[in-house]
Amino acid sequence: MNIVIIGSGNVATVLGRKFKAAGHSILQVYSRNASAASQLAYELDTESTNYKSMLNKNADVYIIAVTDSAIHAAADDLKLHTKVVAHTAASVPKEILKDTTSHYGVFYPLQSLRKEMTALPDFPVFFDAADDVAKRVLETLAHSIAKENVIEAGNDERLKLHVAAVFVSNFVNHLYTLTENYCRKEGLDFKQLWPLIEETALRIRDISPKKVQTGPALRNDSETIHKHLELLKDHPQMKSLYVLLTESIQGMK
Amino acid sequence: MNIVIIGSGNVATVLGRKFKAAGHSILQVYSRNASAASQLAYELDTESTNYKSMLNKNADVYIIAVTDSAIHAAADDLKLHTKVVAHTAASVPKEILKDTTSHYGVFYPLQSLRKEMTALPDFPVFFDAADDVAKRVLETLAHSIAKENVIEAGNDERLKLHVAAVFVSNFVNHLYTLTENYCRKEGLDFKQLWPLIEETALRIRDISPKKVQTGPALRNDSETIHKHLELLKDHPQMKSLYVLLTESIQGMK
Repeated sequence: MNIVIIGSGNVATVLGRKFKAAGHSILQVYSRNASAASQLAYELDTESTNYKSMLNKNADVYIIAVTDSAIHAAADDLKLHTKVVAHTAASVPKEILKDTTSHYGVFYPLQSLRKEMTALPDFPVFFDAADDVAKRVLETLAHSIAKENVIEAGNDERLKLHVAAVFVSNFVNHLYTLTENYCRKEGLDFKQLWPLIEETALRIRDISPKKVQTGPALRNDSETIHKHLELLKDHPQMKSLYVLLTESIQGMK
Repeated sequence: MNIVIIGSGNVATVLGRKFKAAGHSILQVYSRNASAASQLAYELDTESTNYKSMLNKNADVYIIAVTDSAIHAAADDLKLHTKVVAHTAASVPKEILKDTTSHYGVFYPLQSLRKEMTALPDFPVFFDAADDVAKRVLETLAHSIAKENVIEAGNDERLKLHVAAVFVSNFVNHLYTLTENYCRKEGLDFKQLWPLIEETALRIRDISPKKVQTGPALRNDSETIHKHLELLKDHPQMKSLYVLLTESIQGMK
């Protein structure tokens, strides 16, 4: 397929690499950020522009990979009425693109994508389409980079997925961040926790997380919980979370 | 070394396998749970007993790998005054063993250990010792199974480490559990989140979690946060955590 990528951030970059690796032609990178656009275009062996008027009109599909609040501005005035146009945001309804084309949709990669990634990560793609033309193109494009992990998902389902992703990625990463800070302040080496972090994440492929829950909260070990809260008196943010997460674990039994 | 393992649960089992793989002799498994003791002894090619009076007195070191609240009862009346004896609990002071021997200490593997593990996991060992005899034996034993990842850590440092482990493992696993339940109730496939969960955990080897924090909380995207909270009105436990974790992320900026 011939693709134009709109955006030059993390999602635009990794999707661009995936598309190229799957054999598609990236006709152009369009982004308000001229320097990032030119850098991504160079990597993808294509041209770039930061002028909407210079947008290449010959692609089969336009992927708008910009931050949620910038989608409307990026799509506005694109004049792509015969083209397939999709944004990549989980929590934004596809109808935000309804004035851009009748063949609009969503192309949502469920993964945390970063430019710095050296390997191309695996992820499922959740697509949504306003009509059959958009559906055929977006589904085919999704299969080309995600193999069998392609699922059609409407606005409501994507929003629900996004909540799940926030819990297992944004919130989990925040617990890692708090713990890294805590280790630095307490003179501990955060790196010593890496094997535990990895084991905790990787084993859920083999066994449900519900079955491997352990710790002082689960066994109602109030003596240890008390010692831990005492230790956290200089870390009020962690202490509040410790209390609520302990209650939440105990509430599930 | 000649080792007696006291206990027959997850920690006893995986440490037993590690000791055996490192070439040590397991002289005996002693546990109140006769059936589990016999099963572990069979796997480690040794004998077992559930009678304290039958404890083998010829080992160099006795590893008490039982739940925190059972350590005192397991050590009581052991009469091992010339032997090295260590428990494996992070949050229990080593002095709980002071009436058992003068060569007491702690041998704490910082990992979530489970019998079902098919591969032997990597982990650091934090040891603590009341005297030089215990120190020499426990440090040597630790190096034999954890290579260079051996750290001497007193009661306070182990307690601090345990708090860190609770956050990155027990609490993270609880977020996985809540999300798995939520997916089941909402008709989503939790498995689709596996690549995201793994990426989130594995990338912190390359980049600090603070630098890769993303999501609606970090970018103050109140429109998305509002949509998510609306969706979580039937999941009050997740909703409370969503609010507190969002505030915590916003409080760190």
